[in-house]
Amino acid sequence: MLAAFFAIRWQTAQAGRPAAVIMLDQRFLPTRELYRTYTHYQGVARAIRAMIIRGAPAIGVAAAMGLALGARQLKTSDRPATFDRLCRVFAATRPTAVNLFWAIERMRGVYAETHAAGRTRLCERLEHEALALYAEDIEANRRLGRYGAALIPPRASVLTHCNAGALATAGYGTALGVIRAAWEQGKHLSVYVPETRPFLQGARLTAWELSKEGIPATLITDNMVGHFMQKGAIDCAIVGTDRTAANGDVANKIGTYTSAVLAARHELPFYVAAPTTSVDLACPSGAHIPIEERAAREVTHIFRQQIAPTDIPVANPAFDVTPHPLVSAIITERGVVRAPYDESLPRVVRAGQPDTAVSS
Amino acid sequence: MLAAFFAIRWQTAQAGRPAAVIMLDQRFLPTRELYRTYTHYQGVARAIRAMIIRGAPAIGVAAAMGLALGARQLKTSDRPATFDRLCRVFAATRPTAVNLFWAIERMRGVYAETHAAGRTRLCERLEHEALALYAEDIEANRRLGRYGAALIPPRASVLTHCNAGALATAGYGTALGVIRAAWEQGKHLSVYVPETRPFLQGARLTAWELSKEGIPATLITDNMVGHFMQKGAIDCAIVGTDRTAANGDVANKIGTYTSAVLAARHELPFYVAAPTTSVDLACPSGAHIPIEERAAREVTHIFRQQIAPTDIPVANPAFDVTPHPLVSAIITERGVVRAPYDESLPRVVRAGQPDTAVSS
Repeated sequence: MLAAFFAIRWQTAQAGRPAAVIMLDQRFLPTRELYRTYTHYQGVARAIRAMIIRGAPAIGVAAAMGLALGARQLKTSDRPATFDRLCRVFAATRPTAVNLFWAIERMRGVYAETHAAGRTRLCERLEHEALALYAEDIEANRRLGRYGAALIPPRASVLTHCNAGALATAGYGTALGVIRAAWEQGKHLSVYVPETRPFLQGARLTAWELSKEGIPATLITDNMVGHFMQKGAIDCAIVGTDRTAANGDVANKIGTYTSAVLAARHELPFYVAAPTTSVDLACPSGAHIPIEERAAREVTHIFRQQIAPTDIPVANPAFDVTPHPLVSAIITERGVVRAPYDESLPRVVRAGQPDTAVSS
Repeated sequence: MLAAFFAIRWQTAQAGRPAAVIMLDQRFLPTRELYRTYTHYQGVARAIRAMIIRGAPAIGVAAAMGLALGARQLKTSDRPATFDRLCRVFAATRPTAVNLFWAIERMRGVYAETHAAGRTRLCERLEHEALALYAEDIEANRRLGRYGAALIPPRASVLTHCNAGALATAGYGTALGVIRAAWEQGKHLSVYVPETRPFLQGARLTAWELSKEGIPATLITDNMVGHFMQKGAIDCAIVGTDRTAANGDVANKIGTYTSAVLAARHELPFYVAAPTTSVDLACPSGAHIPIEERAAREVTHIFRQQIAPTDIPVANPAFDVTPHPLVSAIITERGVVRAPYDESLPRVVRAGQPDTAVSS
């Protein structure tokens, strides 16, 4: 089943009600479930930047919906330069997630095809494309989940990282989609959930999602992962990805690389749930993936509580890169691929969508 | 030089002023520098349990001072059973730090020798012993610091973990004592400080200590350690220890094992600063060290801020064990020892204190 909440939805314009993007403000979870309605594209772009919505697939959907909204705000439909400016606003929100650029390219393609057909038709087509992208994401997650579930033993204690769940996608999840699918198949699972500092997506979002589903979960701090692997308490790890390079190097939330090194040391499978939309064939290796550096305050403050001395220098890279030799398998919506990734990944990404450009 | 603050001090009884133990309440750092005065042993024991003071050597000093205070509260001095009860109160505060048991044993020894001599004499001797223990800890840290500083290159980026500084000891620090000594020798250092969830000793205490000393430091979240090693930004790691077994296995703050695995993968030296008081020769290996499990609330709340769903199951082991093959060297106040530790450690611990029993 789909989750009992949603990260993002499109509100169709009706009599007296404007077109809008509705998002769950994930900054207030788990203590408040607050939905925000955006009727202007600027608000959607700000929401992506402020991590009101986060997770690479969800960011892609949000950008597409934001562009559909932005097109309605344009005075004339036949000014490609103006639409291009909108696209650049969204492209500048978060640099690491490739789904963002992929979603923008799709919307750009629709604009190029349709803008001469008049404003009404253009807005309809862009809205349609954003909704298609949303629906495809859910469907791809479900398929990915089924492929991934086959890798999970009938009884398993699974480590994840950050939140690659319904909240990070249009609605089912990638890494948590695998866990959801295995759970729906009746497997006996328990999940170790690292809190994922600084933004606490594990504690605030993954723990909340798993609670809502009734899937047994144990919250730990990030620095406990090694200890529980050493104790034999973890059977495998499944994480999401913000961008996977053509050689199988995986950019994902900071801390993923550390878990992968620990999994290798303890000879545990380390799986990456990567919809093909998050694979960037134009990117030869992880060294080419830009890593977003975020504000120091995310580290020095938790909500409003100061936890470090004023003015202490801080590093806050949002992502790290896990080199492909540490990745046991990459789970896509078209099947599970294994090393050598520079052969298997292009094959699975190009199959079925030969016309879709994946660019950064 | 000594630090410009102190974790613990003894206040001698004078006209109108009772004997007391004064402690910096480390729970409020770095935003408040609040000193508390305890005139009853129960308060000192509660302070250890509540982590108003923490760090294995500081806990040992606090227990000794607490026992000196407790003896003054005893109605008669010649009731060994009563003093024994006091000792058990302190022994029950924190199970992992061996210095605690070592300090209690020393105080017990003084009691056994002196209790027949009358209450005044007994109290004087216990107070004297606690102050000796305090002074010895500072002196041992300084010597340990000098031995350790020799291992640090003239320019180095050093990773630490938790707080093994002046705040964790009587006044100079073990791992941070090495860093302080290298800095005093004019070495060009910078320190990576992982925040050390859940109690945030890195963010709150180590960052604060290093700021006060003017030693360049960068605060990171615990899950960034792998990333910065991968980037080549870290040259070596130095951590403290709550208990080191006879074979060189090291119990230290949760997350230490993860850093040691990462250091091994990146072929970086991983040093443990261990005063001989923290070496437990009676403990054959890390498997025999009890690991304290602390309250779930330390993970689900940061100060008063709830960060996880209500009732989510939590694991909160306060320590982990780093197996000796991951330890490049153990730095003591009597020199640096290397593998095989089951030979080198007993030699250095027994040398110079042949009469001192180290027990758990």
